[in-house]
Amino acid sequence: MSHEFPTRAENYSQWYQDLVIKADLAENSAVRGCMVIKPYGYAIWEKMQAVLDQMFKDTGHVNAYFPLFIPKSFFSKEASHVEGFAKECAVVTHYRLKNAEDGSGVVVDPDARLEEELIVRPTSETIIWNTYRGWIQSYRDLPLLVNQWANVVRWEMRTRLFLRTAEFLWQEGHTAHATAEEAVVETEKMLDVYATFAEQYLALPVIKGVKTPNERFAGALETYCIEAMMQDGKALQAGTSHFLGQNFAKAFEVKFTNKEGKQDYVWATSWGVSTRLMGALIMAHSDDDGLVLPPKLAPTQVVIVPIYKNDEQLKAISVVADQLTAEFKAKGVRVKYDDRDTHKPGWKFNEYEFKGVPVRIAIGPRDLENGTAEVARRDTKEKSSMQITDLTLKVEHLLEQIQDNLYRKALTQQEERTYRVDSWEEFETKLDAGGFLYAHWDGTPETEQAIKDKTKATIRCIPLNNKAEEGKCILTGKPSKQRVLFARAY
Amino acid sequence: MSHEFPTRAENYSQWYQDLVIKADLAENSAVRGCMVIKPYGYAIWEKMQAVLDQMFKDTGHVNAYFPLFIPKSFFSKEASHVEGFAKECAVVTHYRLKNAEDGSGVVVDPDARLEEELIVRPTSETIIWNTYRGWIQSYRDLPLLVNQWANVVRWEMRTRLFLRTAEFLWQEGHTAHATAEEAVVETEKMLDVYATFAEQYLALPVIKGVKTPNERFAGALETYCIEAMMQDGKALQAGTSHFLGQNFAKAFEVKFTNKEGKQDYVWATSWGVSTRLMGALIMAHSDDDGLVLPPKLAPTQVVIVPIYKNDEQLKAISVVADQLTAEFKAKGVRVKYDDRDTHKPGWKFNEYEFKGVPVRIAIGPRDLENGTAEVARRDTKEKSSMQITDLTLKVEHLLEQIQDNLYRKALTQQEERTYRVDSWEEFETKLDAGGFLYAHWDGTPETEQAIKDKTKATIRCIPLNNKAEEGKCILTGKPSKQRVLFARAY
Repeated sequence: MSHEFPTRAENYSQWYQDLVIKADLAENSAVRGCMVIKPYGYAIWEKMQAVLDQMFKDTGHVNAYFPLFIPKSFFSKEASHVEGFAKECAVVTHYRLKNAEDGSGVVVDPDARLEEELIVRPTSETIIWNTYRGWIQSYRDLPLLVNQWANVVRWEMRTRLFLRTAEFLWQEGHTAHATAEEAVVETEKMLDVYATFAEQYLALPVIKGVKTPNERFAGALETYCIEAMMQDGKALQAGTSHFLGQNFAKAFEVKFTNKEGKQDYVWATSWGVSTRLMGALIMAHSDDDGLVLPPKLAPTQVVIVPIYKNDEQLKAISVVADQLTAEFKAKGVRVKYDDRDTHKPGWKFNEYEFKGVPVRIAIGPRDLENGTAEVARRDTKEKSSMQITDLTLKVEHLLEQIQDNLYRKALTQQEERTYRVDSWEEFETKLDAGGFLYAHWDGTPETEQAIKDKTKATIRCIPLNNKAEEGKCILTGKPSKQRVLFARAY
Repeated sequence: MSHEFPTRAENYSQWYQDLVIKADLAENSAVRGCMVIKPYGYAIWEKMQAVLDQMFKDTGHVNAYFPLFIPKSFFSKEASHVEGFAKECAVVTHYRLKNAEDGSGVVVDPDARLEEELIVRPTSETIIWNTYRGWIQSYRDLPLLVNQWANVVRWEMRTRLFLRTAEFLWQEGHTAHATAEEAVVETEKMLDVYATFAEQYLALPVIKGVKTPNERFAGALETYCIEAMMQDGKALQAGTSHFLGQNFAKAFEVKFTNKEGKQDYVWATSWGVSTRLMGALIMAHSDDDGLVLPPKLAPTQVVIVPIYKNDEQLKAISVVADQLTAEFKAKGVRVKYDDRDTHKPGWKFNEYEFKGVPVRIAIGPRDLENGTAEVARRDTKEKSSMQITDLTLKVEHLLEQIQDNLYRKALTQQEERTYRVDSWEEFETKLDAGGFLYAHWDGTPETEQAIKDKTKATIRCIPLNNKAEEGKCILTGKPSKQRVLFARAY
């Protein structure tokens, strides 16, 4: 197997694209903008799903499933939502095909035109709030804490595997509350869940903040987000949580009787993360030799490779390897013993390195004599010889160290490439080198847009618990009361 | 809460429909034929998914994800598949909406017409085999054992919650093999997985068999199925597993180099079960008082209800209930302590009975004095008093007994309503009463169709390991070599 692809320094964008494909994570499909998530990539996504799903359940949420299709008219009901979401969508207009008269295949049956077109959901606020009208009558029905795992479609013109695809997989939480305060608490709680997941599982430090009005979700009063830094210094939005106020309740007439017996509109939140997290995971930690996966999300955490010249040696090694495999499994470590005779050890080393398996254990005849094994970690490439007697315990700790190290490394790079910038010249220079820039902004959407037009940098967020600080806008010199976070972004 | 709905005897079909809605399992949505799966229904589906997913993994399968959309031309590539699947489908023709000029909302942008229409997948053989062409070169790439959890759409004209909906959730396995023999073994293995799941989890005895050519999956050489009997004596196909031969490999040019170095087309299977299983689960066990759920799939297995007149009593009961709850959880039992003061015990009893919670434990002040609790099982409605000291152990066994009892009850009804029928008169009579009929058939599709037209009965399957038996066709009197299974079906 050849793993020829550019280094990160040569071409970061191509490095990413090639890595995703060559590491068997995903590939483009016959349908423009839609990807195939291959088994190795899907196994990582499944781990993410399992962890997040448990975190949602631990915070009181339940799963449900709503239709793939949304009647076109629903999008017109919430004014700002239609602007943001009803445009680049897949539109179903017919419900039947028929055989072509010339026998050339099938054609759309013109008699099977839908009375009202259906939109493949780009997000489900509208269909869900239309449903909630039937579920909510009284404050006793609240809060309603529902999550959905689903596929959604947004007809993106420029797509990139995992980062931006026409169809993607995600979860979308949609909650209903009796008061604004409670809804805001929920919005912030779920942002914290995402931040915890990013830091503890993706090994990715994130900045929590709120979006400027320009960058808010269509229909939201406030959009909270977590922003992560990739190795090229660009930002990647890794999750959003929206306080929707009463906008969707008003659009879909969802009222409830409060404790005082009065009718009021219900308060809403929505929050989501998607297969985009796969892109974040890959771009944050991997290197020029291939994937680097945090142990907590690696489908295989430990691989054991035998080094042998004949069957007798293999047999002796296998006795030890089988024993180790059983011990690892008992500890809940995802281990694989690769005794295939179709590939040489060198090929296997290369393969598992490329696939980002966190720990590789090699056992040869000499190791057996000494009661040792060679243990190599993927993140630092360090190798060491360990006694087989306490190998599983040591490797278990090593997995924790690797998880930790990946987080610390990402945090260090984020800190080193985060700058407080006070002049336009410095703003442009630092931006070109890549990084997070804290700079003053005069608070107007016009200036935000002008900066974006000049530099491609956007305000990633106004960090939570931002310190008040008098200053002058980096572009206009007008007064500013706080710094905001600028960066170029994926 | 009022749970007024017809008994099974009065109107089985309405009983089912009402039960699904009133027990909060699912409801119809604003989109014709598409359902909303409500949290309680989805929680059961999640349990099914988790068990099946583990069974698939234990048999060597991995998950992946393929696009929602399939180019229209793909359906024309496999001749019999197009006949069966490309007709009643959702067709995407456009990729953009725009604001209506009269400001009335959004309209489809006529400039955004797709060059080739996309079909929302009714099943994924075509797009998957088109992908496999890039994945398979050599016998070393085989077998390829992939499963997908996904939503699919078939534009059904008459829909019924869970049983037949335009959109439904399912899994579809798609495997590729080097030989026909290996593919047949896989087809049969997955049928066995489904049968095991039905019997051990759904508590549903099934008949394994193969479909007649008439009833085969479009594109299959052989369709295996499991057939279950509902309480009205009608059959429900609960899962299918298809041996697809080389049909899809030929349609999508998927060849491999075999061990002898020669090129050959790849052999295929596909197999699936869907949210239809929810319908089977509900119809097989529930009664005129509501749902009856097998413990292994019940979201809540045990509910504890306190009976009290004042806070002091509640407090004392809660000490015991909390202790029991902790003990149950430690045993992995899904338990809920319902100490809400908003509802009376009678209301709670009624509610949990209706929702099919397998075991209800009631604890009152007198119970506390005696160190006992009242334990009621949902399936038989029997109540007994148990010592609190060994309550969790006994209830754990009781859950197993209930699971067992539901299976035996379903098996008994299936056996009692299964007949060997040798005259047309008896065939019609028994069919009207509801049941499985083993009868002789002359083996022609014409006779099969004629019987269907006359009676609405179809050949559910030719049972596996059917005994050879000389006889005369129930309709035509022509010679027959074996009995086949007839029934009316969902």
